Amino acid sequence: MAPVDGNDEVLYGVHAVREALRSGVRPLQRLMVARTDGRFAELVALGRAMRIPIHVEPQAALDRMVRQGRHQGVVGIVSAGRYAERDEILSFAASQAQPPFVVVLDGVEDPHNLGAVIRTSEAAGAHGIFLPERRSVGLTGAVAKASSGALAHMRISRATNLSRLIESLQRNGLWVYGFDAGSPKCYTAVDYRGPIALVLGGEEKGIRPGVLEKCDETVRVPMRGKVASLNVSAAAAIALFEVVRQRTVANG
Amino acid sequence: MAPVDGNDEVLYGVHAVREALRSGVRPLQRLMVARTDGRFAELVALGRAMRIPIHVEPQAALDRMVRQGRHQGVVGIVSAGRYAERDEILSFAASQAQPPFVVVLDGVEDPHNLGAVIRTSEAAGAHGIFLPERRSVGLTGAVAKASSGALAHMRISRATNLSRLIESLQRNGLWVYGFDAGSPKCYTAVDYRGPIALVLGGEEKGIRPGVLEKCDETVRVPMRGKVASLNVSAAAAIALFEVVRQRTVANG
Repeated sequence: MAPVDGNDEVLYGVHAVREALRSGVRPLQRLMVARTDGRFAELVALGRAMRIPIHVEPQAALDRMVRQGRHQGVVGIVSAGRYAERDEILSFAASQAQPPFVVVLDGVEDPHNLGAVIRTSEAAGAHGIFLPERRSVGLTGAVAKASSGALAHMRISRATNLSRLIESLQRNGLWVYGFDAGSPKCYTAVDYRGPIALVLGGEEKGIRPGVLEKCDETVRVPMRGKVASLNVSAAAAIALFEVVRQRTVANG
Repeated sequence: MAPVDGNDEVLYGVHAVREALRSGVRPLQRLMVARTDGRFAELVALGRAMRIPIHVEPQAALDRMVRQGRHQGVVGIVSAGRYAERDEILSFAASQAQPPFVVVLDGVEDPHNLGAVIRTSEAAGAHGIFLPERRSVGLTGAVAKASSGALAHMRISRATNLSRLIESLQRNGLWVYGFDAGSPKCYTAVDYRGPIALVLGGEEKGIRPGVLEKCDETVRVPMRGKVASLNVSAAAAIALFEVVRQRTVANG
């Protein structure tokens, strides 16, 4: 289980957590329950309906988070940001009268890296970021802090399945570039002025093969040194600002 | 005083620290002494001659680092990397038959940021990095870890005074670009194919005015969002790979 850090806000008790789940005003990034039956069944059903990851935890683990058993077997971690719907991102691009420019992150599990990518994406004027529901850190307090305030301005959406997300972006007219160290093509040799999605892999592992094969084209950032790879936040900065450069030149 | 973290190696005792100072085989990034007179005077003189920052610390602070007083009033933190001489960086560029391409960091105090810039600089094929002796984190274990191994391949030099360093780079024919958010000129509008130094400021504060005015030219990375600035490691990635892009196009 991902640790709860000092930047996360913790809700506990059946009532507080149920209200948070029902109202949606304070979205949860994670729901922890001691059991899934009896009075917990309703909370688990609400959480599932809202696509919130649910963890069944022993009483002792919950006791470490909230002292003296006041948690009643239920703890929710408040999300530092709200998730957007896929269509919200594409309609935001349309409202700006700009060709869509989105980022897809496959498996970024480090909150500092996700926060850094959010900050740089916002600075580059990207319209949104897509994360998978699994194999990714959520919008935790640590992510918000590392984003230096950019999380509040960035549309971020979760996809159950990245391959299907890519197919739907393609149906919406986006050209999908996968950043893969093994590609023969340099990332500066393609045209980013139309509707695009940039797919970047997480730490170490890169883009999963099933996701990579859905991309329209793969490109690589050339490596000039002895170290074989870039950190995902550096790769994102380089890719995003090549888009800015091409789009600026295009507009004079 | 910068904290010692779990990645740093600590030497202690008059003998071990004196040997480290004399041999230079295990360079120190910091020397801590209880006093500067008597038997400490020789160590302090050796440390000064090697331009190692010296901190006078109360006995209690040294006791927290090395238990039971075994430190004899002397503690040295082993540097995770060796500093290069300024001329080593320029002659390395010459040996590669490439126009010099160096980075000057003014006041990067966060080890993760310094490690990230080292990693990206190495990946971009930069010939070296210059740091000021003060207002900068040293080559600590945390920096080595964040650089993901790149520290071992990167020439890094310390300058007592960045303004004088810039003047000496200029005498060696380098054109010095200061990255400053207030500049009217876009960083992609200049030519990086000749001998160049890129000057980047640390977290929040940017380049100090005295250093900025020594630069031949200032440029900015355009901001397209609501958040006003980039993290220094993102700005470095964007700047460094624009150099790679231009130099690659130039060479076909």
